[in-house]
Amino acid sequence: MVEKPAVNPAAQPLNLAEYHLLAKAKLPAMVYGYYASGADDEQTLRDNEDAFRRLRFRPRVLIDVSRVDMTKQVMGIDLSFPLMVAPTAMQRMAHPEGELATARAVARIGTVMGLSSWATTSLEDVAAHVPGLPKFFQLYVYKDRAITERLVRRAERAGFRAIALTVDTPQLGRREADIRNQFQLPPHLSLANFSDMKDFAEVKGGAGASGLASYVASLIDASLNWNDIAWLKSITRLPILLKGVVTAEDAQRALQYGADGIWVSNHGARQLDGVTATVDCLEEVVQAARGRIPVFIDSGVRRGTDVLKALALGADAVLIGRPIVWGLAVDGEEGVYRLLSLLKDEFKLAMQLCGCQKVSDIRRELVVRDAFAPYDVRQMLSVKMPSKL
Amino acid sequence: MVEKPAVNPAAQPLNLAEYHLLAKAKLPAMVYGYYASGADDEQTLRDNEDAFRRLRFRPRVLIDVSRVDMTKQVMGIDLSFPLMVAPTAMQRMAHPEGELATARAVARIGTVMGLSSWATTSLEDVAAHVPGLPKFFQLYVYKDRAITERLVRRAERAGFRAIALTVDTPQLGRREADIRNQFQLPPHLSLANFSDMKDFAEVKGGAGASGLASYVASLIDASLNWNDIAWLKSITRLPILLKGVVTAEDAQRALQYGADGIWVSNHGARQLDGVTATVDCLEEVVQAARGRIPVFIDSGVRRGTDVLKALALGADAVLIGRPIVWGLAVDGEEGVYRLLSLLKDEFKLAMQLCGCQKVSDIRRELVVRDAFAPYDVRQMLSVKMPSKL
Amino acid sequence: MVEKPAVNPAAQPLNLAEYHLLAKAKLPAMVYGYYASGADDEQTLRDNEDAFRRLRFRPRVLIDVSRVDMTKQVMGIDLSFPLMVAPTAMQRMAHPEGELATARAVARIGTVMGLSSWATTSLEDVAAHVPGLPKFFQLYVYKDRAITERLVRRAERAGFRAIALTVDTPQLGRREADIRNQFQLPPHLSLANFSDMKDFAEVKGGAGASGLASYVASLIDASLNWNDIAWLKSITRLPILLKGVVTAEDAQRALQYGADGIWVSNHGARQLDGVTATVDCLEEVVQAARGRIPVFIDSGVRRGTDVLKALALGADAVLIGRPIVWGLAVDGEEGVYRLLSLLKDEFKLAMQLCGCQKVSDIRRELVVRDAFAPYDVRQMLSVKMPSKL
Amino acid sequence: MVEKPAVNPAAQPLNLAEYHLLAKAKLPAMVYGYYASGADDEQTLRDNEDAFRRLRFRPRVLIDVSRVDMTKQVMGIDLSFPLMVAPTAMQRMAHPEGELATARAVARIGTVMGLSSWATTSLEDVAAHVPGLPKFFQLYVYKDRAITERLVRRAERAGFRAIALTVDTPQLGRREADIRNQFQLPPHLSLANFSDMKDFAEVKGGAGASGLASYVASLIDASLNWNDIAWLKSITRLPILLKGVVTAEDAQRALQYGADGIWVSNHGARQLDGVTATVDCLEEVVQAARGRIPVFIDSGVRRGTDVLKALALGADAVLIGRPIVWGLAVDGEEGVYRLLSLLKDEFKLAMQLCGCQKVSDIRRELVVRDAFAPYDVRQMLSVKMPSKL
Ligand SMILES: Cc1cc2nc3c(=O)[nH]c(=O)nc-3n(C[C@H](O)[C@H](O)[C@H](O)COP(=O)(O)O)c2cc1C
Ligand SMILES: Cc1cc2nc3c(=O)[nH]c(=O)nc-3n(C[C@H](O)[C@H](O)[C@H](O)COP(=O)(O)O)c2cc1C
Ligand SMILES: Cc1cc2nc3c(=O)[nH]c(=O)nc-3n(C[C@H](O)[C@H](O)[C@H](O)COP(=O)(O)O)c2cc1C
Ligand SMILES: Cc1cc2nc3c(=O)[nH]c(=O)nc-3n(C[C@H](O)[C@H](O)[C@H](O)COP(=O)(O)O)c2cc1C
Repeated sequence: MVEKPAVNPAAQPLNLAEYHLLAKAKLPAMVYGYYASGADDEQTLRDNEDAFRRLRFRPRVLIDVSRVDMTKQVMGIDLSFPLMVAPTAMQRMAHPEGELATARAVARIGTVMGLSSWATTSLEDVAAHVPGLPKFFQLYVYKDRAITERLVRRAERAGFRAIALTVDTPQLGRREADIRNQFQLPPHLSLANFSDMKDFAEVKGGAGASGLASYVASLIDASLNWNDIAWLKSITRLPILLKGVVTAEDAQRALQYGADGIWVSNHGARQLDGVTATVDCLEEVVQAARGRIPVFIDSGVRRGTDVLKALALGADAVLIGRPIVWGLAVDGEEGVYRLLSLLKDEFKLAMQLCGCQKVSDIRRELVVRDAFAPYDVRQMLSVKMPSKL
Repeated sequence: MVEKPAVNPAAQPLNLAEYHLLAKAKLPAMVYGYYASGADDEQTLRDNEDAFRRLRFRPRVLIDVSRVDMTKQVMGIDLSFPLMVAPTAMQRMAHPEGELATARAVARIGTVMGLSSWATTSLEDVAAHVPGLPKFFQLYVYKDRAITERLVRRAERAGFRAIALTVDTPQLGRREADIRNQFQLPPHLSLANFSDMKDFAEVKGGAGASGLASYVASLIDASLNWNDIAWLKSITRLPILLKGVVTAEDAQRALQYGADGIWVSNHGARQLDGVTATVDCLEEVVQAARGRIPVFIDSGVRRGTDVLKALALGADAVLIGRPIVWGLAVDGEEGVYRLLSLLKDEFKLAMQLCGCQKVSDIRRELVVRDAFAPYDVRQMLSVKMPSKL
Repeated sequence: MVEKPAVNPAAQPLNLAEYHLLAKAKLPAMVYGYYASGADDEQTLRDNEDAFRRLRFRPRVLIDVSRVDMTKQVMGIDLSFPLMVAPTAMQRMAHPEGELATARAVARIGTVMGLSSWATTSLEDVAAHVPGLPKFFQLYVYKDRAITERLVRRAERAGFRAIALTVDTPQLGRREADIRNQFQLPPHLSLANFSDMKDFAEVKGGAGASGLASYVASLIDASLNWNDIAWLKSITRLPILLKGVVTAEDAQRALQYGADGIWVSNHGARQLDGVTATVDCLEEVVQAARGRIPVFIDSGVRRGTDVLKALALGADAVLIGRPIVWGLAVDGEEGVYRLLSLLKDEFKLAMQLCGCQKVSDIRRELVVRDAFAPYDVRQMLSVKMPSKL
Repeated sequence: MVEKPAVNPAAQPLNLAEYHLLAKAKLPAMVYGYYASGADDEQTLRDNEDAFRRLRFRPRVLIDVSRVDMTKQVMGIDLSFPLMVAPTAMQRMAHPEGELATARAVARIGTVMGLSSWATTSLEDVAAHVPGLPKFFQLYVYKDRAITERLVRRAERAGFRAIALTVDTPQLGRREADIRNQFQLPPHLSLANFSDMKDFAEVKGGAGASGLASYVASLIDASLNWNDIAWLKSITRLPILLKGVVTAEDAQRALQYGADGIWVSNHGARQLDGVTATVDCLEEVVQAARGRIPVFIDSGVRRGTDVLKALALGADAVLIGRPIVWGLAVDGEEGVYRLLSLLKDEFKLAMQLCGCQKVSDIRRELVVRDAFAPYDVRQMLSVKMPSKL
């Protein structure tokens, strides 16, 4: 049974949690289950958000914040604020205009959209209908490398600015809601990047199985490995981002193998349950990247203050996944645009209340972890505080 | 829907939590929402109180506590016990006598009252009606510096003993209850310090917005910065307290820029959600202040034992905000007076049970943080206990 | 409203928690409130029990435990197992036979009974009716030292084996249930050690106040201090135990001032809320006592495994307070006896499952605190494990 | 009252928790109570599972996991994946085919079955009916050593591959459900290994007591100790595993006394409540074993990811107890087989998502404990990360 939202649907949602509630009330159970769920016991799903709450601010005061510059350049692209939109598959299940609605909202707010390999709108359509939009193409590598190569070349041709290679999905995570619902893509929709290939465009629910899990098992290449980075670089000049790196060891490898960026992600807790929350492993990745390539982070970002926390720990920008789908479900392009505006407003306010005039003012000392009553312990250990005191 | 209080309204409330419940039952939802709420998800609102609970006493026994001296001098003012009243705006929404009732109760108990810039009783009226009361004037700096200067001079003339400059409010925190309720000051009330200037005296609820947030955005100076301390010192001889400092770095700056006191506060969790609880950052501020200027603390104090804990960590005095409003709502001057008496009784008992004869006996060794099974760890780390053993 | 017990009252309670539930169902609310409650928010009340749960066993296997010797000698007294009965006042409110029933059960099980100054049976009656019983007299020092001296001399004469001087009660802790209920000793009962002095024998409920708190404030000596130990030693040859020491500093003083034993207690969380759980401060006291005088502990012991944990941390014996009252309420002498037998059985089983043949086998390595995933951390810190490995 | 399962009984259970719910709905209360319960307050019962959740993965990406080798050899036996079945007594209470059904399922999946001394099917019957099955015989040592010796020789003759000597049960743990239910083996069943000896084959519920606790107290040898290992080795050539070791000290002794394997177990929290979760003490045992004998672990394993975590901490294989009984209750052999298949699928997926091609790829760096925001602290302590970075 669907919960009634605690908010008045007439008024504007006040925060991302309210968007989630409203979307839940509108969406069919199978669709909601697909969008919302995480793997197994959803321990990491909860932890992704909790981990942000375990970080505490140490704001600075008496700094002129009458004007705040939220802009950030990443990979040569100007963002109106350091938040981008992560690729989420099959957006037309949330709203008839699907990825196009998202694309228009993202263009209006002035940031980057990640388009999924499994979009229900083709990459060419997105490019054609929303010309000014900076966009990344999220790549799943198919066993059939020719198909994969064609996808990459099409993305390059359509003006995508980077390839985000998803590295955490050799198989689909065990999402029990999808198994219970025998999830399938509704028949009136298709994975639009494969409109010419019925087997690749359909996601059919099996008997007692998630249709998407079967799709991945039969079509996606579980042998993908570091050597394929060279292959990928050989077929495109686009920068390659590795989406799903969560350890220092792999970050170091990313540098060695010539990746152009690292995207710390646990796929919104949809793949491996029990994996560390992204904001808990962000710092080791940042340190291993040694400032030589940008580091992005997604999974669990729900507030403007979360964006600030991730940046303080060294991220160049953050991305959100599910909230975009909730915005779409609530009100299509307008929903996504208002949701992004809300986050932007929250981020601006957070910067002001932390004494940050520009994004580069967001420094490491701004946050501490609550695992410790920090000062007591530092004293006990005679470890210096990271500030200039 | 308003919860029914769990207590018998006929009997005297036994603790501050009961005052809160009784007040909630009496106040209109919009007013209660304004007084009670914190920013965003109210994580810090909960943490402010929880952080006190994470501190544990190490009481000393067999000390003559038949006579306990609770008095404390701060900034030349004699307090009957080391607790003062923080400024909370618009007290006439809680009780017709508003700030005057508070002032009378504070004078009776023998401590200091902080009067808000946004009081619903003018600073002159408070001074005139409660002559003996020691009081601080809480200052918001308006974009219009002439208006600000006039406020400061009026406070000096009316016998206020210090200016408490609020440094954590370049914009108003996002308090969702106020947005939902489109908070406004009820039309029969006004910000009495600006009775001659309609635009400054009214707080009007906007469409889908908090009236107070709009008020701050349009009138308060978000450019306020360290250099303005010099300006402030140039227009008044009153001591300047910085209300809202929560880091060692800013405490050090406070010394450099000539502040006369530091008031560790997160504005009762109404500004930046996720900021560290005040009692968790108190010690770093105390250490940075190096005993050269007094350090006060508010946010989350609800028991006499909390007062003791804050003093053990180095605070010179503590302040309470919301509880005063609950006392007012429950029974005006009498309510505030009884609530303050209750805290004073609790504080006295706590001193006795901790073996403290006078306030200066409240030493650092009196408390430990529970984050550790402390002795085990110290042993493991071979760190000496802070006692003289 | 009184909760219905979840257990079948016909069958024997299976653990101390069931005794508590059954007693709650039987006792009048005022009496139950007095016995059960702790000070203020009852944070320490919960923590006393939780702190035991934070200790984890490291049991040893393959040791012959077919025969287990649970006996322990303390202060020349043979205990059938290392648990004694703490003094709890006014036991006739729980059962008509009150302290006599307790005394008989304690004698049968073969341990020590602590008798409260505020017993509802006189110390002489207890001594006369239960001749073989080893017993400690718990002493509250009255402002009137002559009365106090008389009490001590009577206890010595009646064959008590030690004076347990309560050092944590210069005033009564703030127990809100007692204030709410205006607690008083039912008129048909009296503090029997003062049967000749009406003012000392009655506990009258005041207006909106706890009768016992008023009693203490008017009669008990809040000036009691270390120098009075010498006085006490001058009027009795009985060993002096200090009941209520919770810091290493005071344990060291206890040695200096010639105390004969330390009783780590926070009065069952009835005095200072927020004080550390006794089992969390036990070790620092044990270390400070350097084996020169015995260390006892009470507050929160509810299982045979708790007894083992306290002994592993260095206690010579443990005591229980409230559970005795629940046993009394459930079934008088039989109730107390069965409850003590249950604990003894649990303790024996715990010894067997931990590989302890005798009480002196219960060593420090048997427990670790869970605050850490201990081995990980020790490794990180390169600290040696306390075992002989 | 029995809870209704939250799942549709027609569909296949999706995880072990659902098997548990379905089984609970089917089984009589006394039987369910016996299978499900832990000792005392069941603190360790909860902690066994929680402790796995406190471990977080650090998965590696971009490794070819198209083919995953889950096989593992332990003690010369090939396992299709590193999970075995722990001995659980009296399986015919769950399903008429009891141990035979389990044995057939285990043989089909290709792993080892542990058969309890207290099986309701004789060891010879299991061996005869399921010839290919590798199996361990779990041994309880009876006071009557002749009987014990006969059991061991029969197991050797019937082709069992090891003796798992249970070392944590000198007495039965206090399982309150069994006391409340006066647990007894239903009269139509018997402990089949003793079919010729009525007193050893029956488990009779006593008055207000667990029948099994009485059985152990009267028949099992609480004097079992390290010297008996030599005796046991003198009567059998089978390898001896010590089931119930949880400390480094005892692991070291196990080596000294010639044990052939260590089985870290707390008996599914059924013996000593408060004992450390097995996955929390696994590492100290592994280190003490120094790779010279295999280390197994059970208690709390419920997910494929739990298997991976235990192996990362150094276990050679894991075992499950209760889940097998739930599988049996739900659908006999088929239930157990499907449950084991589910775990095997989960384990395979977990290996793939962690970048492990074979079991030996599961290394220590794969997991961290969440007690710390690990990287922060390591930095503070200047301790090196365990990786090769
Ligand atoms: C419904 C949904 C679909 C997703 N589809 C894809 C996808 O096709 N490709 C991909 O790399 N990640 C996909 N992701 C993961 C997101 O890109 C992103 O990593 C994740 O949603 C971030 O976590 P959040 O939802 O907590 O913000 C999907 C996530 C969701 C919730
Ligand atoms: C209803 C309300 C109004 C407040 N108004 C002001 C104000 O006008 N100026 C100011 O500096 N602080 C203001 N504060 C913050 C208080 O001065 C104080 O920092 C805070 O209430 C302390 O936390 P507590 O409420 O947990 O005791 C206000 C707080 C509340 C709850
Ligand atoms: C109802 C009650 C009455 C008590 N009376 C006394 C007393 O008269 N004198 C004293 O020193 N301690 C007294 N105590 C404290 C006990 O001696 C003991 O320290 C405490 O009960 C131990 O904690 P526990 O109840 O958790 O076992 C009392 C405790 C209770 C619960
Ligand atoms: C119902 C039941 C019966 C058991 N019987 C035995 C037994 O006869 N011998 C034994 O050594 N362990 C026995 N155990 C313990 C198991 O071998 C194993 O250690 C434990 O179940 C593992 O924990 P888990 O149930 O959390 O997986 C039993 C456990 C259960 C739940």
